[in-house]
Amino acid sequence: MIKARVTITLKNGVLDPQGKAIEGALSALGFEGVDHVRQGKVFDLELEGTDKTKAEADLKAMCEKLLANTVIENYTISIA
Amino acid sequence: MIKARVTITLKNGVLDPQGKAIEGALSALGFEGVDHVRQGKVFDLELEGTDKTKAEADLKAMCEKLLANTVIENYTISIA
Repeated sequence: MIKARVTITLKNGVLDPQGKAIEGALSALGFEGVDHVRQGKVFDLELEGTDKTKAEADLKAMCEKLLANTVIENYTISIA
Repeated sequence: MIKARVTITLKNGVLDPQGKAIEGALSALGFEGVDHVRQGKVFDLELEGTDKTKAEADLKAMCEKLLANTVIENYTISIA
């Protein structure tokens, strides 16, 4: 069994209203000097088997097909 | 300026219907052997100053007060 983490982040230049809202909320709570807040997603998953090369290829395909919108999002895969 | 990443994940035992839905969708797309999919959130942010100890304390306070629901979520802070 292979444990993996996929992290999806917005590409630079893509507007992130949710991040902006969090920035505003942090400022309203008194946290000064917080800037450029960007929200992303993280997926933790387990894959059967022990072949890490195959797992990485599968995870890449999953990102391309389902997990990430590659027009506006980047993804990084890390295998434990 | 300090760059930091906060990762929020659901605690063990907390139901994750979104993760289950992704698991089902991956299976429907033909990705076999994917299990225990859990979705979380990631925040990338920039803090003014260069004091990493203060930044870490501030980030912890942000997580406790706003970013994470500590009843059902864990958070990890990593400072670049």
